[in-house]
Amino acid sequence: MRPVVIVGVGVTKCGKFLDVSLGDLAVEAVWGAIKDTDIDPKAIQLAYVANTMAFPVTGGGGTLGEKVLAHCGFGGMPVVNVENSCCGGTTALRGAFLEVASGNCDIALALGVEKMYSGDTSKTLTAMQGGNPYSGMGFQFSGNYAIGLRRYMRESGATREHFAKVAVKNSYNGSLNPYAQHQRSLTIEQVLSSRPIADPLTLYMCCSMGDGAAAVIVCAKDVAKRFARKPLVEVAYCALRSGSYRKIHGLDVPLPTLAANEAYEKAGIGPEDIDIAEVHDAMAPQELILYEQLGFCKSGEGARLIDDGRTKINGDIPVNTSGGLSSRGDPTGATGLYQTAELVWQLRGEAGPRQAENNPKVGLIQNQGGYTEFDRTSVNSVVILKN
Amino acid sequence: MRPVVIVGVGVTKCGKFLDVSLGDLAVEAVWGAIKDTDIDPKAIQLAYVANTMAFPVTGGGGTLGEKVLAHCGFGGMPVVNVENSCCGGTTALRGAFLEVASGNCDIALALGVEKMYSGDTSKTLTAMQGGNPYSGMGFQFSGNYAIGLRRYMRESGATREHFAKVAVKNSYNGSLNPYAQHQRSLTIEQVLSSRPIADPLTLYMCCSMGDGAAAVIVCAKDVAKRFARKPLVEVAYCALRSGSYRKIHGLDVPLPTLAANEAYEKAGIGPEDIDIAEVHDAMAPQELILYEQLGFCKSGEGARLIDDGRTKINGDIPVNTSGGLSSRGDPTGATGLYQTAELVWQLRGEAGPRQAENNPKVGLIQNQGGYTEFDRTSVNSVVILKN
Repeated sequence: MRPVVIVGVGVTKCGKFLDVSLGDLAVEAVWGAIKDTDIDPKAIQLAYVANTMAFPVTGGGGTLGEKVLAHCGFGGMPVVNVENSCCGGTTALRGAFLEVASGNCDIALALGVEKMYSGDTSKTLTAMQGGNPYSGMGFQFSGNYAIGLRRYMRESGATREHFAKVAVKNSYNGSLNPYAQHQRSLTIEQVLSSRPIADPLTLYMCCSMGDGAAAVIVCAKDVAKRFARKPLVEVAYCALRSGSYRKIHGLDVPLPTLAANEAYEKAGIGPEDIDIAEVHDAMAPQELILYEQLGFCKSGEGARLIDDGRTKINGDIPVNTSGGLSSRGDPTGATGLYQTAELVWQLRGEAGPRQAENNPKVGLIQNQGGYTEFDRTSVNSVVILKN
Repeated sequence: MRPVVIVGVGVTKCGKFLDVSLGDLAVEAVWGAIKDTDIDPKAIQLAYVANTMAFPVTGGGGTLGEKVLAHCGFGGMPVVNVENSCCGGTTALRGAFLEVASGNCDIALALGVEKMYSGDTSKTLTAMQGGNPYSGMGFQFSGNYAIGLRRYMRESGATREHFAKVAVKNSYNGSLNPYAQHQRSLTIEQVLSSRPIADPLTLYMCCSMGDGAAAVIVCAKDVAKRFARKPLVEVAYCALRSGSYRKIHGLDVPLPTLAANEAYEKAGIGPEDIDIAEVHDAMAPQELILYEQLGFCKSGEGARLIDDGRTKINGDIPVNTSGGLSSRGDPTGATGLYQTAELVWQLRGEAGPRQAENNPKVGLIQNQGGYTEFDRTSVNSVVILKN
């Protein structure tokens, strides 16, 4: 395996864009990534394209990547369409990384493109419920997460105020991000008094549906040195884990921890080395649990991290400077590449008003998706980037 | 890149199984592949799972691979869900191959699982039409293929009888395959007098919808030598190409030829070395064009190959001994792995009554999927296997 770097990233704003097609979103992200570097577009040798909802929501059908890349002006290259719910983007990045790391090609594209809005929200909600054995009991994602959060409150002593503080932090970060779906800074009172969704979750703790696209161009480090004009950000490792049936499969370690431990080991980096992270706060309070599961603090100490302000932009380990899923947005298949783009900007020092103040050198991306058993998701990925 | 071999294959019968779930199909194929070798199931480190129609046809939702593999008794491993229309299966094989060849893991599973029957055929037909810009003009797959076949008739002199001969050959092969959807040997008269679909295509030249699953376990050759009890079949290379917009993208070489040339070059094998092949005869006559595009004969000589009986089971280059898509079946995401299983059996000498008589040592798999412009498909893959 040889070193792999990210040479270009491009994203669209996240939001509700009823009059913009998947192809048009892809054009903006892909050509944004191309313009972010000095690469000849024809040098891109293959692509991984992540999407979850084209079939049920837009009727876009199969071979979506081939279609949107043709719309972008590309043809002839191998295209692998991947799906892994909210982990689709990092699954695409993992594929592109592996192709380059193994020497199968020099330059590869990872693209995530998603439209969750179609004018008929029931299509999206039905698709999100697909295969959930508990949907007949009324369990949407929020209900599944709420059960786990209630348990976490009991076990750790974390309160609704702690949960609201995460949403407040991420909404502030989102207010500084021109690509964020929600660019408004909330107060604790606003979060706690917003509409109840599934106790302890309130509306402003939950991410919205979103349309958007994000693209990342990866390249062999040796090759990149010849043309890249910006600081190279190395992909240290991309870990992927699945399987929520802990009891059945004897997985007594939470999936985020399993994935993180693999990434730490392969990258030769420990949780104490992580300077900055983007994690899966589809429900903002989950961020506290992830602090613990990823090793940013000890078990039960997540609430203290948010109390002490350590994960703010000016903290020693800023988390979700982009606004996270709860404010930046969560266009399912694109989310992991939005997270990647944010950390690339942060590690380059290009994040503008939301630039982390701790001069980050090593960043961690975590996301998760699907679910089959209450609060346990069925797929988790952890990516480590470094300068 | 290190040598990669196939140690186990397993398939279900192709057919219409309204009362069998995607998970149940997967169990039969995956455990069939495990029982085909002496592998410890826990040694399988990751999986690529191909499917196209779970969302629109069964409502199965995202992270399908995680779900069906949990149903099979697996959890914790990385799962990459891939989609590439009828090339999904070979895309999954390519992923598993690359993981092992690169040294990222030792043993990987490729699974294709598909249900096209749901009791509501309109769901499947709508899904197959998704994103086809010509569907409003009435162009289904058959119409798109028919246009290309009419041109081929004019350019090559091939006749409807030649086209029927392909369906006859493949129906005979299918009659010998216990996993085939259609196990009935047809005559030229039966094929030509069957219901017209889109001239020159008649019903018996076209594949049916199908449910089915196929699984392939790949392994590093050095590791496989320790436990495999059957002859090892090596994956020489997996090529993948996309992009049908030939005029826009300046692709003046047909996609099957582009993919085959890449595979030949990387495998160090020429078309003259191919002893046996499984190719994409979703419309049986297309097989003649593929003989030419894959280099089995010169341009315009496809009809002579079928006239001379060279692609029969007792010929010097048997093609579609399984019955092909037209008789064995075409459960979209699983098709490429059905083709793979057939060639593994042939190269091992395990194909029973349909065993090729030329003692095959090198086999080629070609399939294709999607479409965006009349007879041109948007994705093509070519895999070369060898003893």
